[in-house]
Amino acid sequence: MHVMILGAAGMVGRKLTDRIASSPHILGGEITRLTLVDAFQPTVPAALQSITTAQTADLADATVAPKLIATRPDLIFHLAAIVSGEAEADFDKGYSVNLDGTRALFETIRHEGLKDRYVPRVLFASSIAVFGTPFPDIIPDDFFTTPLTSYGTQKAIAELLLADYSRRGIFDGLGIRLPTICVRPGAPNKAASGFFSNILREPLVGQPAILPVSDQVRHWFASPRSAVGFFVHAATIDTQKIGPRRNLTMPGLSALVADEIEALRRVAGDRAVALIRREPDPVIERIVAGWATQFDAQRALALGFKAETNFEEIIQAHIEDELEGKIA
Amino acid sequence: MHVMILGAAGMVGRKLTDRIASSPHILGGEITRLTLVDAFQPTVPAALQSITTAQTADLADATVAPKLIATRPDLIFHLAAIVSGEAEADFDKGYSVNLDGTRALFETIRHEGLKDRYVPRVLFASSIAVFGTPFPDIIPDDFFTTPLTSYGTQKAIAELLLADYSRRGIFDGLGIRLPTICVRPGAPNKAASGFFSNILREPLVGQPAILPVSDQVRHWFASPRSAVGFFVHAATIDTQKIGPRRNLTMPGLSALVADEIEALRRVAGDRAVALIRREPDPVIERIVAGWATQFDAQRALALGFKAETNFEEIIQAHIEDELEGKIA
Repeated sequence: MHVMILGAAGMVGRKLTDRIASSPHILGGEITRLTLVDAFQPTVPAALQSITTAQTADLADATVAPKLIATRPDLIFHLAAIVSGEAEADFDKGYSVNLDGTRALFETIRHEGLKDRYVPRVLFASSIAVFGTPFPDIIPDDFFTTPLTSYGTQKAIAELLLADYSRRGIFDGLGIRLPTICVRPGAPNKAASGFFSNILREPLVGQPAILPVSDQVRHWFASPRSAVGFFVHAATIDTQKIGPRRNLTMPGLSALVADEIEALRRVAGDRAVALIRREPDPVIERIVAGWATQFDAQRALALGFKAETNFEEIIQAHIEDELEGKIA
Repeated sequence: MHVMILGAAGMVGRKLTDRIASSPHILGGEITRLTLVDAFQPTVPAALQSITTAQTADLADATVAPKLIATRPDLIFHLAAIVSGEAEADFDKGYSVNLDGTRALFETIRHEGLKDRYVPRVLFASSIAVFGTPFPDIIPDDFFTTPLTSYGTQKAIAELLLADYSRRGIFDGLGIRLPTICVRPGAPNKAASGFFSNILREPLVGQPAILPVSDQVRHWFASPRSAVGFFVHAATIDTQKIGPRRNLTMPGLSALVADEIEALRRVAGDRAVALIRREPDPVIERIVAGWATQFDAQRALALGFKAETNFEEIIQAHIEDELEGKIA
């Protein structure tokens, strides 16, 4: 099996690569070739060095998809994207990568299949940004996609294309709508959602963190480990059971910031919680108020997708995967 | 006001042109220029001959939109499309016109606005084909768009683009999801939905018609007169009241084929009804079973959009508009 990861240098891409390297049969067959692609140089896993090619490429460049797809990968993880803030700030860049790049990939697969039968599985990283306020308290699987960002628009369009190409048998696609990933590893960043991770990740290593919203803010979470698990599960699932509605809201944990803090207290004690400094920021409070807080992800759950059910699990996953099991 | 109609030679385009010609202030201001565009030569209305330009052009040709938009129309009716059956049969043609042509139009408006402020109103003909089975009995305004045709996919993508461009203030757009238009004027055609009109239009002029499905089939209808009315109303509506969810399912009449037949009987008598020959066609029955039968178009109704409430009104509109008030 030839596996290709587009967006392999991103957070989910790197963790997916590591998961495959440590469990080479996890995708349901022997991997004979692994191709890692990203705008930034992807890291080749030592365990799969002999079968891995890593390259930098930009999907918005029309010559890229034909070269990649000429190698006929059997399984394609399409995680490459311009992120939300940048897609909103740079209209052309967002549409160019997130829409045109995705469509170029899909069209190239179609043209490759016209030469000689070729129906790869395509797993696409979508987002709950396809939804826009106002929301019901719990968003059902059949709620409409009325995004309020260009990023969400581009993801929703890619979902529609993925479903149509899959319906026509051009490829076997599945769109995976990720919750907000928490605890995000790495340094604190300026993303409006950053604090959800910062208030756990920093205190766990003895560092202070700022909480800019009320602890009664509710949000929708899954760990990086679960995010990788969604894609691994999607790689082996029987897509006949899914039918033509190929885009699935993933399960997640609906939790208050207060739930995060109490879980941190149970795992790391009052000393860790004391490192959280409350500094209300009306701008961030307003942005966060526009985000979905809870989904009833019935279809994905019925298909066997799994996420954490409490915040201690999310924190434990971070401690095991990022801190070698040790906290400050 | 400069008004442009793309798809002016189609059924709705012609009737919209006629409506404007007979009531030149119906769009809320004096029309100083009317531009009619279609793949087929549009007819210039006599009453507006001095201010009308009619031309053939293909939106899929990248040079077309820039030439059209350089004239800076204030109000654009975008009715141009490859129809459902053809978009399904010819993948490239459907995506080229319905997606790329629409996006080229939107992008050209954006670039024109970057030169000098330009925010036209754009009224887009969408379709209930954006929805796909299985449906609830009555489809609510917040039901998701999971089309089961490439045509429906292309319309749903255009809706997403329209909402994003409107949200960003690039233009002031509104997507109008039309019900099945009945009674369609003209000769019987081979469209799977043709019989809904054929069984009324033909008997009204003393001609036989074939009914290929059970008279217990339910469907969602509006007259051509209502369809034109939707676009006229959308031209003058206060879009501030609509918010960012810019695509609206239009009101319509949910009726059985039996309701059509009884209305025909009341309007034109048993002799007309006797001209309907029942010839069940399993292929058409199966296609029709996949179509939506009823919507709860609350948002559009609240915004003042109106359709017929019984089939006699639909038949009377046809008799007045197409038969000069006379039946056989």
